[in-house]
Amino acid sequence: MIFGSDNMVGASDRVLDALVEANATAAPSYGADPWTIEAEGLLAETFEHDLAAFFVATGTAANSLALSAITQPWSAVLCHRHAHIMVDESSAPEFFTGGARLIPVMDADGKITPEALGRTLDRLPADAPHNVRPSAVSLSQASECGLVYSPDEIAALTDIAKSHGAAVHMDGARFANAVARLGCSPAELTWKAGVDVLCLGASKNGALAAEAVVFFDRKHAVDFSSRRKRAGHLVAKGRLLGAQFVAWLRNGHWLDLARSANLAADQLSAGLARHSGVRVVWPTEANEVFAILPRALGEKLRAAGGVFYEWNPDSLPENESLGKEEVFLRFVTSFLTSPREVSDFLEAAGAISGPEALPGSDIWH
Amino acid sequence: MIFGSDNMVGASDRVLDALVEANATAAPSYGADPWTIEAEGLLAETFEHDLAAFFVATGTAANSLALSAITQPWSAVLCHRHAHIMVDESSAPEFFTGGARLIPVMDADGKITPEALGRTLDRLPADAPHNVRPSAVSLSQASECGLVYSPDEIAALTDIAKSHGAAVHMDGARFANAVARLGCSPAELTWKAGVDVLCLGASKNGALAAEAVVFFDRKHAVDFSSRRKRAGHLVAKGRLLGAQFVAWLRNGHWLDLARSANLAADQLSAGLARHSGVRVVWPTEANEVFAILPRALGEKLRAAGGVFYEWNPDSLPENESLGKEEVFLRFVTSFLTSPREVSDFLEAAGAISGPEALPGSDIWH
Amino acid sequence: MIFGSDNMVGASDRVLDALVEANATAAPSYGADPWTIEAEGLLAETFEHDLAAFFVATGTAANSLALSAITQPWSAVLCHRHAHIMVDESSAPEFFTGGARLIPVMDADGKITPEALGRTLDRLPADAPHNVRPSAVSLSQASECGLVYSPDEIAALTDIAKSHGAAVHMDGARFANAVARLGCSPAELTWKAGVDVLCLGASKNGALAAEAVVFFDRKHAVDFSSRRKRAGHLVAKGRLLGAQFVAWLRNGHWLDLARSANLAADQLSAGLARHSGVRVVWPTEANEVFAILPRALGEKLRAAGGVFYEWNPDSLPENESLGKEEVFLRFVTSFLTSPREVSDFLEAAGAISGPEALPGSDIWH
Amino acid sequence: MIFGSDNMVGASDRVLDALVEANATAAPSYGADPWTIEAEGLLAETFEHDLAAFFVATGTAANSLALSAITQPWSAVLCHRHAHIMVDESSAPEFFTGGARLIPVMDADGKITPEALGRTLDRLPADAPHNVRPSAVSLSQASECGLVYSPDEIAALTDIAKSHGAAVHMDGARFANAVARLGCSPAELTWKAGVDVLCLGASKNGALAAEAVVFFDRKHAVDFSSRRKRAGHLVAKGRLLGAQFVAWLRNGHWLDLARSANLAADQLSAGLARHSGVRVVWPTEANEVFAILPRALGEKLRAAGGVFYEWNPDSLPENESLGKEEVFLRFVTSFLTSPREVSDFLEAAGAISGPEALPGSDIWH
Repeated sequence: MIFGSDNMVGASDRVLDALVEANATAAPSYGADPWTIEAEGLLAETFEHDLAAFFVATGTAANSLALSAITQPWSAVLCHRHAHIMVDESSAPEFFTGGARLIPVMDADGKITPEALGRTLDRLPADAPHNVRPSAVSLSQASECGLVYSPDEIAALTDIAKSHGAAVHMDGARFANAVARLGCSPAELTWKAGVDVLCLGASKNGALAAEAVVFFDRKHAVDFSSRRKRAGHLVAKGRLLGAQFVAWLRNGHWLDLARSANLAADQLSAGLARHSGVRVVWPTEANEVFAILPRALGEKLRAAGGVFYEWNPDSLPENESLGKEEVFLRFVTSFLTSPREVSDFLEAAGAISGPEALPGSDIWH
Repeated sequence: MIFGSDNMVGASDRVLDALVEANATAAPSYGADPWTIEAEGLLAETFEHDLAAFFVATGTAANSLALSAITQPWSAVLCHRHAHIMVDESSAPEFFTGGARLIPVMDADGKITPEALGRTLDRLPADAPHNVRPSAVSLSQASECGLVYSPDEIAALTDIAKSHGAAVHMDGARFANAVARLGCSPAELTWKAGVDVLCLGASKNGALAAEAVVFFDRKHAVDFSSRRKRAGHLVAKGRLLGAQFVAWLRNGHWLDLARSANLAADQLSAGLARHSGVRVVWPTEANEVFAILPRALGEKLRAAGGVFYEWNPDSLPENESLGKEEVFLRFVTSFLTSPREVSDFLEAAGAISGPEALPGSDIWH
Repeated sequence: MIFGSDNMVGASDRVLDALVEANATAAPSYGADPWTIEAEGLLAETFEHDLAAFFVATGTAANSLALSAITQPWSAVLCHRHAHIMVDESSAPEFFTGGARLIPVMDADGKITPEALGRTLDRLPADAPHNVRPSAVSLSQASECGLVYSPDEIAALTDIAKSHGAAVHMDGARFANAVARLGCSPAELTWKAGVDVLCLGASKNGALAAEAVVFFDRKHAVDFSSRRKRAGHLVAKGRLLGAQFVAWLRNGHWLDLARSANLAADQLSAGLARHSGVRVVWPTEANEVFAILPRALGEKLRAAGGVFYEWNPDSLPENESLGKEEVFLRFVTSFLTSPREVSDFLEAAGAISGPEALPGSDIWH
Repeated sequence: MIFGSDNMVGASDRVLDALVEANATAAPSYGADPWTIEAEGLLAETFEHDLAAFFVATGTAANSLALSAITQPWSAVLCHRHAHIMVDESSAPEFFTGGARLIPVMDADGKITPEALGRTLDRLPADAPHNVRPSAVSLSQASECGLVYSPDEIAALTDIAKSHGAAVHMDGARFANAVARLGCSPAELTWKAGVDVLCLGASKNGALAAEAVVFFDRKHAVDFSSRRKRAGHLVAKGRLLGAQFVAWLRNGHWLDLARSANLAADQLSAGLARHSGVRVVWPTEANEVFAILPRALGEKLRAAGGVFYEWNPDSLPENESLGKEEVFLRFVTSFLTSPREVSDFLEAAGAISGPEALPGSDIWH
């Protein structure tokens, strides 16, 4: 009953098999291997666009390197105040950008709205060179609160960013979950909607450690090879990353994995919502469920073997607050979470009495 | 009628004379000159404490270098959301600290309150090494809104900072104005109240370009000489800075200058407040007056030759807002602002009919 | 016939099996997994010393992070002029250290001698804060030229470093090869001889991507967790690195692998040396053979399928120079290089007529 | 008898007077003052070219900021191994460039020769992104050894630099002395000969603290305003720098000052050369005399009140070496050094018996 994070399980069988297979032969190092080259091609196919892709082992590296390519050291990156790059990646953005500033978009709840972004941009002082000016806006897809941005929502945000001279970065640690949910194409959610660079995460969704920085305009990628190398993120045996990505992208495996995780989240969310005293805080749109529970219920679930984290009440929406005997929790499902695991968990909560049938769940078998 | 900034006038006569005198002889370079050495001694006397002092030519350099001495690159500096280091010094803090983060203290109006600081500190996530943790708190004396912190207020803030493991920096660009207003000793406003490092600004108050970084605990100063040098802030002919500081500190000249500027601000504030339709936004405690004026009045003053800036309405207190036909302005007086200049200005506003007598104003003559 | 680099082959079977096995279960992320914890324990056992160990995926990350822990931004790191950190890691050392300087030890041929190190240190100007002063000395074991430093040689160098206030870093990308060759203990080659921090490389010797930064004095490791995180080198699924290291260290597997590579290098070196017109440039002490060949022979070997690199003639010893029709080549063997591969290669060179029997070569089977 | 450095005296009378005069009125801050604007115009006139100029207070700031504008963090700056930026500016170049590397041009004695530069460039490995590639070459005019580069020499060096894709920076801390000596125009020594950015130093030659970064191609200056601000080098009361430069440039004052210093150096050099046992090491072409003296003579001169520095014997030309009882000294003359001061000094050395008449020396009176 692991709902702590989607990085607590290993790789999918297909990804692991690809790694084992790629291990067998000699190959050029530093990304000149056939798997890395194939992975780049698969990305271009997947996104239906010419692109420059670079693989690294961690999401923090991907995000920070990507931001450094579109931000000057005396500029700012706007992002949600609970964005991963703001909260969970130490001061990596500052380190990689040479000291650019992160500025939170104010008054943004579950997602950044065009109004909130516009208001924040308009209020930033603009007296150069004294004031830090924004050169990039970062969006998380799925969002910090497990919500997805539709193509139109993204386009509205990138329009505003661009009218202020800012490029757009997308933190796609859970991009696969968003695509699987929305049912639109990867292209529609990125370059067609004005995204300049996507950090496409596989680590949380079926890989062991593999992230791609995808530039849809090669002009942003000019120095990226140098940036990656000097940050120590050019892996010698590039096959490690390339092979994972090949298996992950091939035949839509990445979306199958994400769909599976999303379904488990749906099941969990619906089950929790039925429980009296539980308030699911945002619609469950990706593979995360945020919910306010009676403290006693939280403890009971933990005692029953549930693994999950207490979440920052600061991120609650304005119209929601935490009661004295309540606890705010985050539950994350992964591609490996089975209907049985969810129903056992819900049973432990006394919410339901057995597993629920869910379509498409055969991926667990 | 110059109320644009206290950096729009030159140096005081005494400071200039000292510079001319120091020019006449040969002397060792890089701060080994007799003026620099005397200035350090005068600082120790002024603050009644052993200290390590370093002179630089700009406030941005002083603040950023000071912060770099008490902050790690993966840490944060907490400050008012309108602090000079946050708004007006580009990303210098990030540059000098190697990428530390500035985090605004929320819900702070004219000054940072202990409650606001405590709440902000308590709400910062603390999961190392993922979250950025605060290593320093920065206070501005006088504050961003022209208010002064009393020794007790400072002590309350430094207590909270230290209980969270953070050192305390004071941006004293207008420290002289605060001392002159409060009538307490420099010591009471700094080390006695828990301040670790003070950036003492002379540039805005009688010098041409001279700031001192003053460490009350030498342990923080261990690397400072290296930091200053590699930032290009070690001036070869150190007399430039040393001589200014000697003249500025000697015989309380610095406080005479500040007192004079404060009085001019008082006069201006009182005069404006009498004008119908004008709301002086904060008590005038240093040499800055913030006021909401009818837009027409503002234009009239400008047409009459007044120099002043429109100010960021974002910094207005919560209970105040700007009407449609209103404008938010900042007026700054300097040691050179004469009662006549103020009264001429007020006259232009139609507020009063002549100069007001003010005690101690003989400094202008 | 792959002699291009030891990073052109995959992982050893044991290392790969460990990875597959570690993939199967859920585990805490960010290095709190059982494999990472076991790997730390195995390192302490292997080095017979309390230590703090941190795992990363690349050698550049390991070296640069390690250097950043023992160097201030206004200090210098001394190293061989052909050290990997000087030549092959972009400006990563500068990036991670916040701008420290690399200074080459002059007059060092295959290894740094105590005389060369002392002379370089003595000649560095020492007028603080103007001159950059050394805070660290970096040694490569095995060296840039494939030579090994004995415990006594290391001790002599670390003595000099420490008498100048410099800590000692060891780039151990091929540390295993050195240990296997010298037959002394890992402890004797590191902390017993004055090494402060070792970057222990597994990637070139049986792992897919795994390096350990090993501090023998925990005081140097105080901030390392923060440094690694903000550089994006904290892998979410820590098992990736931990499991590789467990398999690599357990039962001396790492030394078996290194021994095998060394033997192949010996065989190759001896075979080449027998060829008329070939000069093996340094004694073959690890798994690298540097040799001057007639250009025609080099081309013949390449045409026969040999993979190897032309090497920088600048690194030739003083008493050696390249003739017009000659080429300077580097051949690297790996744990996978079989006696048959070497003999086929030598045969292609027309040097020998069949495989030579070598003791201990059963590792290939 | 001050020959320690040209930064041990104050400003020239004219420069000081200009400062006093500029002090008297109110003016816009941050470089929008009339003096700064006039200074920019005078520079354009002086160099007969459209240019972008920025003033700062120190040579280290000027050089490092200039280099940061033409170098990427993963690139290198080539310079003389005894260049001021290499030896005397801490790791400021690394700090400002975000971690670029300084690489010494090997085999360069008093000046960098085209051969030495070409050889160094040719020998740098070029395997991107592993190797650091040169993006800038830095020349010092006058050179580290007090020699001047002719327009042809500069052109030959900039040709080589540019054919390798490197821009050219000139450290002109003593540019005035070079112009005064060579008798050619500032234009001929800079943009006409391929220099991209000049750091024009006034501090060592008549100013208190004033350096100009002069870009001959505005494309390099695009971000400079931001760079200067975030480094804390934008002086609030810009008149400090502007007024100095106006007085310094107007009516060729800067060249008069430099000529005077050069003449004093000539007198000193000729006098010392006549002394038995003294070897003047380089031709005296600017305002520095480098000489090997019997140690006893050196001590006698110091006892007589002479101020001068022992110099790094490492910088001696290849064909020169220091005897056991000898000492290597540097003597620097300034615009204030009078013929009397030099002759007194020489007299103390027992070399001559009175002042020598020198043409053009009326500047002292």
